[in-house]
Amino acid sequence: MLFKKIFSKNNLHALVHNSDTKLGHLFALFIQALIILSLITFSLETLPNLSTTQRHSLHLIETVIVILFTLEYLLRIYVADKRLSYIFSFYGFIDLMAILPFYIASGLDLRTVRLFRLFRLLRIFKLFKYSKALQRFKRAFILVKEEMLLFGFVALIMLYLSSVGIYYFENAAQPEQFQSVFHSLWWALTTLTTVGYGDMYPITVGGKVFTFFVLMVGLGIVAVPTGLIATALSQTRAEEK
Amino acid sequence: MLFKKIFSKNNLHALVHNSDTKLGHLFALFIQALIILSLITFSLETLPNLSTTQRHSLHLIETVIVILFTLEYLLRIYVADKRLSYIFSFYGFIDLMAILPFYIASGLDLRTVRLFRLFRLLRIFKLFKYSKALQRFKRAFILVKEEMLLFGFVALIMLYLSSVGIYYFENAAQPEQFQSVFHSLWWALTTLTTVGYGDMYPITVGGKVFTFFVLMVGLGIVAVPTGLIATALSQTRAEEK
Amino acid sequence: MLFKKIFSKNNLHALVHNSDTKLGHLFALFIQALIILSLITFSLETLPNLSTTQRHSLHLIETVIVILFTLEYLLRIYVADKRLSYIFSFYGFIDLMAILPFYIASGLDLRTVRLFRLFRLLRIFKLFKYSKALQRFKRAFILVKEEMLLFGFVALIMLYLSSVGIYYFENAAQPEQFQSVFHSLWWALTTLTTVGYGDMYPITVGGKVFTFFVLMVGLGIVAVPTGLIATALSQTRAEEK
Amino acid sequence: MLFKKIFSKNNLHALVHNSDTKLGHLFALFIQALIILSLITFSLETLPNLSTTQRHSLHLIETVIVILFTLEYLLRIYVADKRLSYIFSFYGFIDLMAILPFYIASGLDLRTVRLFRLFRLLRIFKLFKYSKALQRFKRAFILVKEEMLLFGFVALIMLYLSSVGIYYFENAAQPEQFQSVFHSLWWALTTLTTVGYGDMYPITVGGKVFTFFVLMVGLGIVAVPTGLIATALSQTRAEEK
Repeated sequence: MLFKKIFSKNNLHALVHNSDTKLGHLFALFIQALIILSLITFSLETLPNLSTTQRHSLHLIETVIVILFTLEYLLRIYVADKRLSYIFSFYGFIDLMAILPFYIASGLDLRTVRLFRLFRLLRIFKLFKYSKALQRFKRAFILVKEEMLLFGFVALIMLYLSSVGIYYFENAAQPEQFQSVFHSLWWALTTLTTVGYGDMYPITVGGKVFTFFVLMVGLGIVAVPTGLIATALSQTRAEEK
Repeated sequence: MLFKKIFSKNNLHALVHNSDTKLGHLFALFIQALIILSLITFSLETLPNLSTTQRHSLHLIETVIVILFTLEYLLRIYVADKRLSYIFSFYGFIDLMAILPFYIASGLDLRTVRLFRLFRLLRIFKLFKYSKALQRFKRAFILVKEEMLLFGFVALIMLYLSSVGIYYFENAAQPEQFQSVFHSLWWALTTLTTVGYGDMYPITVGGKVFTFFVLMVGLGIVAVPTGLIATALSQTRAEEK
Repeated sequence: MLFKKIFSKNNLHALVHNSDTKLGHLFALFIQALIILSLITFSLETLPNLSTTQRHSLHLIETVIVILFTLEYLLRIYVADKRLSYIFSFYGFIDLMAILPFYIASGLDLRTVRLFRLFRLLRIFKLFKYSKALQRFKRAFILVKEEMLLFGFVALIMLYLSSVGIYYFENAAQPEQFQSVFHSLWWALTTLTTVGYGDMYPITVGGKVFTFFVLMVGLGIVAVPTGLIATALSQTRAEEK
Repeated sequence: MLFKKIFSKNNLHALVHNSDTKLGHLFALFIQALIILSLITFSLETLPNLSTTQRHSLHLIETVIVILFTLEYLLRIYVADKRLSYIFSFYGFIDLMAILPFYIASGLDLRTVRLFRLFRLLRIFKLFKYSKALQRFKRAFILVKEEMLLFGFVALIMLYLSSVGIYYFENAAQPEQFQSVFHSLWWALTTLTTVGYGDMYPITVGGKVFTFFVLMVGLGIVAVPTGLIATALSQTRAEEK
């Protein structure tokens, strides 16, 4: 009877969904730790030159994680008020995707799908009551949505025009590097975002003068959206008070 | 009679100019799709190693696009209230430039002019009612025009002084790279915009110390205008309410 | 008697703690100059190809600095109202760490610990009455703390997802460069911060298209916190008035 | 008599100092054009592989410019109310420095001093009535002076600590690149400003992890001042109304 009482559906529901209770908080923390552990094993598996022992250890940890995630998935189905709506919900799909590949194929490498598990990390915000900051960000984004779209569109045109321009200036001098407008797009992207890997850069006088004008006009267009979000966030924060 | 009624000048005028009506909206969308298609074919034509079949296909698409743009141009002249003022207007010139090169020369490569067609993309904003965002941007720009000019001018002086300085520090050590003040300008541009391709960089102690001071002072001058536009945009948005 | 009066505990306390008095100000400036001198000698010692004479000179300066710091430490203990609480305080620990390594080991190279002496530089702000600016910054930081944490967390997820993505696109083409997700993290960091050393960059079409999307989304996430601090600082400044 | 009237001291004074009159405006424009021409000749002279004819032409233009600047200097002395105070004023010194090197030494290359002529370009702002924007910038700068100093100081400490850190991580692996803390400072500068030339970058795991933390903390410190100036400028603009 005691066992039944402790593991009653109500208590389990609170465990899974109510992170305000101590046990629920621990459960949420455990799942989050498990997610991070699974990301680390996932990353470690990509390392070359792993010994057979190391591969076996990683596979073992992997198996344990999947079993625990499976138990969590079954538990969530069990405690759900409307089971079908959970299974076909966004998080229900994510939870299934985190375990399904392991069962379907050990030979096939479908582990990428487990990445979707990442979305569960968003629940961390609920724990730390970051929902306020998230909603403020959402309101700030709505506030600047139009400008963002406008700048995004203008940035795309800017990137395209820069590619076409540099193609005309550099194609003759560097036919290997600036083969086509599509190849030049890579230059436009790395230049206007100021990444500047150095794998492509103009060497003709015309190309350099063109880059001067592209940067003078383009830097603002690419960088302004960042400033827009920042000022919108401070504005929504001010409006709250 | 019915044909005449449907294709009356009034109806055609609404088709071309009034994107609020369903047909006008479809017409605008069709022209925009055509513009994007012509940009893609234009870009594809720059690809090296195209087969003869591919070149022929692209030329065919090209021809169809120009014919459609020609029909649109003639339609716009026909429905215009003041035909001459349309022909000599900005968009009239753009519309002509989008088709003229094709007729003038098949042998000559004047296709670049078609790029002006890009300006028509700005009409997209009207469709999505982005005019409000555009006008806000315009007011924000007027608000910061003086500072922008001031910073633009100071940025040019900064670029020039940096070039002269680095020329004196690096010319002896890297005569190939820092050949003249003009060559050094390219270094100043890629450094102050933080692109940093890595094709030119100081190697002397003096040049490195000089770069330190240039970056400390220069970064602000080059980056401030972006912040100015962002804050001006948020201010104009606040004033609207 | 006069000697006793001049070197009374009260006077010495004022000397050490009260930088408003002339002597106290001079004492503070002297200690700061000593800190900067010790940083310069520390840096000079890392230079290769030093002659034996130069090494001896640096060691001599080093010894004099440590003796002076020791005297200062003993003086601070002597004038402290609660000696133990000073010794076990943060600055007491720093003061000890600045001299201890020298006495413990001449052979062992523990000089790194002396770096903690750097924290004393923070006292400079008190002299120039920058405490107001520092406190404003502190209030501004508290104002945006939640957003900063949110963006910091999202930035980490962004970095991780970018690494995993580029690993899948580039691993086959550049197995040496993009060996694992961990190696790709270095690429993600230098790209999203727009540093772009050029030691790692995508060469496949897929990798370049992926980089386009990573930069479009990622730049904002990494750069917004800077804008947040700036606007929060201007807000707290406005609130003060 | 007419000659005397036209070239009276009053008229000449108006010519030199009052750019509101038509002649004064033309005089100012002429001097500015001359300054820009002298900058261009100065830059052209740095070009290698100039023919003897080209060198002679540049020297001729140079001589004419100096003669015109000398006439301007003498004119300014003649019309000055207090001649000595003009000669020993900032602009008086600049005006002298623009011509003196030419007379002192034709053999010696003291042409660098002519650079000070650049400061005269600042007068352009007066013409276009940009004084309002300049004064707003000045007020904005005063508003954020304390934070700027604070951030400047923290940025220097950040640069130094980053250099020391990377030196310890990379010195063993790349003794040629990271020779000393001073050599590492160059890396810290190009990394924290996100220039990233690619001439120095960490290759050890420790160095890369260290760079991660340096960038996470450092980017904000280096970039915040820009945001500060931008928000301060928008604030001062708002206060004006």
